[in-house]
Amino acid sequence: MVDQELRRARAGLTQVIEPADALGVVGAQAWGPQRLLEIIEGATPSQQDWKALTEHDPNDEELAQKIRRNLGEAIGRWRRRNKYLKPDEALGYIARIGGRFIIPEDKQWPAALADLGVTEPLGLWLLGNGDIPSAETTLGLVGSREATYYGETATKMLAIKARQKGITVLSGGAYGIDAHAHRHALAVQGQGVPTVGVLAGGLDRLYPAGNTDLLREITRDGVLITEMPPGMRPNRYRFLNRNRLIAALSAVTIVVEARYRSGALNTANHAHELGRLVGAIPGPIQVPTSAGCHRLIKETPTMLIDDPADLDSLFGEPFRTDTTVAYLEPSRDHDVLNVEELLVLEALPVRQRTTIEHLCGITGLAVPSITGILTKLERHELAEQEAGMWRKQRNT
Amino acid sequence: MVDQELRRARAGLTQVIEPADALGVVGAQAWGPQRLLEIIEGATPSQQDWKALTEHDPNDEELAQKIRRNLGEAIGRWRRRNKYLKPDEALGYIARIGGRFIIPEDKQWPAALADLGVTEPLGLWLLGNGDIPSAETTLGLVGSREATYYGETATKMLAIKARQKGITVLSGGAYGIDAHAHRHALAVQGQGVPTVGVLAGGLDRLYPAGNTDLLREITRDGVLITEMPPGMRPNRYRFLNRNRLIAALSAVTIVVEARYRSGALNTANHAHELGRLVGAIPGPIQVPTSAGCHRLIKETPTMLIDDPADLDSLFGEPFRTDTTVAYLEPSRDHDVLNVEELLVLEALPVRQRTTIEHLCGITGLAVPSITGILTKLERHELAEQEAGMWRKQRNT
Repeated sequence: MVDQELRRARAGLTQVIEPADALGVVGAQAWGPQRLLEIIEGATPSQQDWKALTEHDPNDEELAQKIRRNLGEAIGRWRRRNKYLKPDEALGYIARIGGRFIIPEDKQWPAALADLGVTEPLGLWLLGNGDIPSAETTLGLVGSREATYYGETATKMLAIKARQKGITVLSGGAYGIDAHAHRHALAVQGQGVPTVGVLAGGLDRLYPAGNTDLLREITRDGVLITEMPPGMRPNRYRFLNRNRLIAALSAVTIVVEARYRSGALNTANHAHELGRLVGAIPGPIQVPTSAGCHRLIKETPTMLIDDPADLDSLFGEPFRTDTTVAYLEPSRDHDVLNVEELLVLEALPVRQRTTIEHLCGITGLAVPSITGILTKLERHELAEQEAGMWRKQRNT
Repeated sequence: MVDQELRRARAGLTQVIEPADALGVVGAQAWGPQRLLEIIEGATPSQQDWKALTEHDPNDEELAQKIRRNLGEAIGRWRRRNKYLKPDEALGYIARIGGRFIIPEDKQWPAALADLGVTEPLGLWLLGNGDIPSAETTLGLVGSREATYYGETATKMLAIKARQKGITVLSGGAYGIDAHAHRHALAVQGQGVPTVGVLAGGLDRLYPAGNTDLLREITRDGVLITEMPPGMRPNRYRFLNRNRLIAALSAVTIVVEARYRSGALNTANHAHELGRLVGAIPGPIQVPTSAGCHRLIKETPTMLIDDPADLDSLFGEPFRTDTTVAYLEPSRDHDVLNVEELLVLEALPVRQRTTIEHLCGITGLAVPSITGILTKLERHELAEQEAGMWRKQRNT
């Protein structure tokens, strides 16, 4: 049983130390979380405290001085945030909503996070049904917020295949690819934790608001985690550092859709740095939502993924494949369309109409296929034409 | 000025020796093309001739014996095709239609072909306006016969960009991507030879017939070449070996569209073996015409190409001839067959059965070889016999 004072101290540290602040981990390791918290609360570090900092390498005096100077500055920085230091309140809140605060000393702490070294989280706030699964059986599925139907279809295929293999689908809870990943993972009746959402803000206010229902569903059947204590809002810095947790907690991270400059590439970079496997789904050239995926494949050791069966080789043999698990389609209007129909729908402009030839060029489909598909889309009130020129129907 | 007897001899050799028959190059190198032709015409190799064969490595008696044995068999094979040996007719014909027959001794012979080693062509029949450009400024653009509009669009973008850089677009003159590559290259008013077509049959009958106008246009503004002398038709064996010329003559080969099993992958494999740069255009997953491109990117050192500007970096690099790269294992039924087996398969009629003697006449192989090969083809369900008469098995 882990000391409750230790847990309380680490909870407090997450309230004043931002994610990936390496000096927080250095201080907690050298002094212990309780002593570090005492110092942030006002105690003056003793000569012995300073000496303990460099005990692991007593000969490197230059490094020792640097750490002392930087940690001294950091303590000042953390002290200025003491007004947020309410560990008992936060722990009480998380218990009331049925959640937990887990710390590296817990046996349920994911071993994979140690790969983050000095940016390992000080603790994780967790809400859900079960523990965080091993990275070895976890697939990170990430991508653009403005996902296309093509991207959703690819996400769905991968999520279903992963769940059939008993693999957990982990993502960031955002709009677009993230939401599709969680939703389709939840729809499979498989073994183990279906999905893990890694958020960039506290669990008291699920973000983004438009995903509230989905995120609540994750807390019922899966797990939501975050470094941020209750009360803390996500911001750009926290989103970017959240991505390192997605990378660390997944043996494989696949970017489904990403623009040339996209946050999903940041997650892929973290995964590369951690030596995790990275994959990306290709798409038609000139389609902006695939440009980031192509960039990853071109410029980094990222594998091209064009088949859910690729998960078999990526995750290797040790995993059970259960192809009999049920999949209950989440209800969405557009799910009645197949891949090619979704491609055409996505290619349709919203304002000015376009020709069938132009749609051929974008989608790679032949004229007869396009014509048939447009007729079906028209019947579903998803497309409209005038004099042979087509566009997406409004309000779809 | 190259000796006309030398040119005449090499012209004759192309009439009896199939492309990529290594023993033809070995014989022509050791004895000179004229002496090799004399021997095929009936002269008996002298003791000195046999000795000349292994002068480059006099110590390896085992290799010497093997070469002597194989070359002896090959001479028998070539002699059985002597009825095709009409070099003066062929040279007269190519001159009348405004073409040429170029040989390795010519200064216009493309230096890059030497990378083919013992499968370097014995000569090239050429029709067109200009010489074959250097491989360093040549882009091979290849792909499916059943190209999609997406594939054509990508081909067009690359062909235009290449021509804007003064780079020649080389392809195989076939339907689909090949035709688009030639067509769009011809459409750009740039410097140098716009396009080179590498054919698998003689220049007297342009193949495929549906591309006749395009191929004629290439002879006006670009260059058509082939190893096959006038009068020889393309067959599967010749198509596959034509691909090695496309690979050798291009610093960069890009596969625009290809199914999972496609002849374009064969060209990419040749290019990898020659240490040339290889690229492939991605497309939507689950679209069959992109599956071969994705396979290349996944399984071989093939670069993903999603932007015509990629040609800037590809042609900026120094010309590589590194032969250590991996290549994609062929997996088609027919790819388990060797050169001679493919020759026999190609020679088999589809309807009425034929005799082994007749197959000897067509293929130039001896009866024992043919018999062994037919047995293997039968085992692979590629050939069937009745009362010693053979034909191709249907649906192969």
